Amino acid sequence: MEFDLALAIPLLERTPPTLRALLAGLPAEWTAATEGPDTWSAYDVVGHLIHGERTDWIPRARIILEQGASRRFEPFDRFAQLRDSEGKSLDTLLDEFTRLRSESLATLRGWQLTDAQLSLEGEHPTFGVVTLRQLLATWTAHDVNHLAQIGRVLTKQYREAVGPWRAFLPLMDR
Amino acid sequence: MEFDLALAIPLLERTPPTLRALLAGLPAEWTAATEGPDTWSAYDVVGHLIHGERTDWIPRARIILEQGASRRFEPFDRFAQLRDSEGKSLDTLLDEFTRLRSESLATLRGWQLTDAQLSLEGEHPTFGVVTLRQLLATWTAHDVNHLAQIGRVLTKQYREAVGPWRAFLPLMDR
Repeated sequence: MEFDLALAIPLLERTPPTLRALLAGLPAEWTAATEGPDTWSAYDVVGHLIHGERTDWIPRARIILEQGASRRFEPFDRFAQLRDSEGKSLDTLLDEFTRLRSESLATLRGWQLTDAQLSLEGEHPTFGVVTLRQLLATWTAHDVNHLAQIGRVLTKQYREAVGPWRAFLPLMDR
Repeated sequence: MEFDLALAIPLLERTPPTLRALLAGLPAEWTAATEGPDTWSAYDVVGHLIHGERTDWIPRARIILEQGASRRFEPFDRFAQLRDSEGKSLDTLLDEFTRLRSESLATLRGWQLTDAQLSLEGEHPTFGVVTLRQLLATWTAHDVNHLAQIGRVLTKQYREAVGPWRAFLPLMDR
């Protein structure tokens, strides 16, 4: 499937209400659960998505659109949420993510990007030249990637409890 | 994590609103997309969840609770939705799932299951003796397992579109 802004936006705007429907008010036994040491809980993922809104997607899109002398992105801190989320409830994080995503999409829509702009390039600190189109496709794919992660983290909590059904639930041992 | 009805129910009741938040009104380019031949779309998964409400979870729980002469479950048809969903819109399926899940949970709550009842046994057609506790844990884990699947199906649609970011999104090639 090729990137299409008219299809990406409907998915991007559904992530906050989806996470809210799943996680708001859910007992902490689920939302704080992880897949083991150095893996993330649903709570951690929401913090990570917030950090992406603040420092990754729209800020990097701006760097590309401005086409200044340096088009190199700041490296993205994949562990920032462990610090930034400190002391905040999950409900607070869900509110923050909802607000930030809504602002990001207002900015994106306001740009009314042309095909030519979507082909503009920036420089990723690890793998070099990337287009705005690829950045926006990654933003979209990244959301549902983390939704899949949350589903996997939650399902794994019942790895033992399901007994022999474990063999029918391949994610349990992935 | 051990099975606990008081924790399982909050997750079970969040599945319909979560799927609705993600899928209602989402363009068919996403909801009909699969991971390739003989794999399921988000639309197919919702049909599968509906079939589970009708023929699997509560019906099997009843067989266990009745402790009749035959406690063997009917085999579950994992492809029934390909027939049952025919001609129905995704919105219709989401409504149907919401209603059925709500009825299932009303039944479950009405039973006010004791620990002794949760330990009652039935017979799975493939792997033999299972407890009611394991059946209910599987119901819960199965929901989030399919949520993870939907996230993975959606993210894979941008496998090519993300360009070099593909290396950072391991689900793309799973």
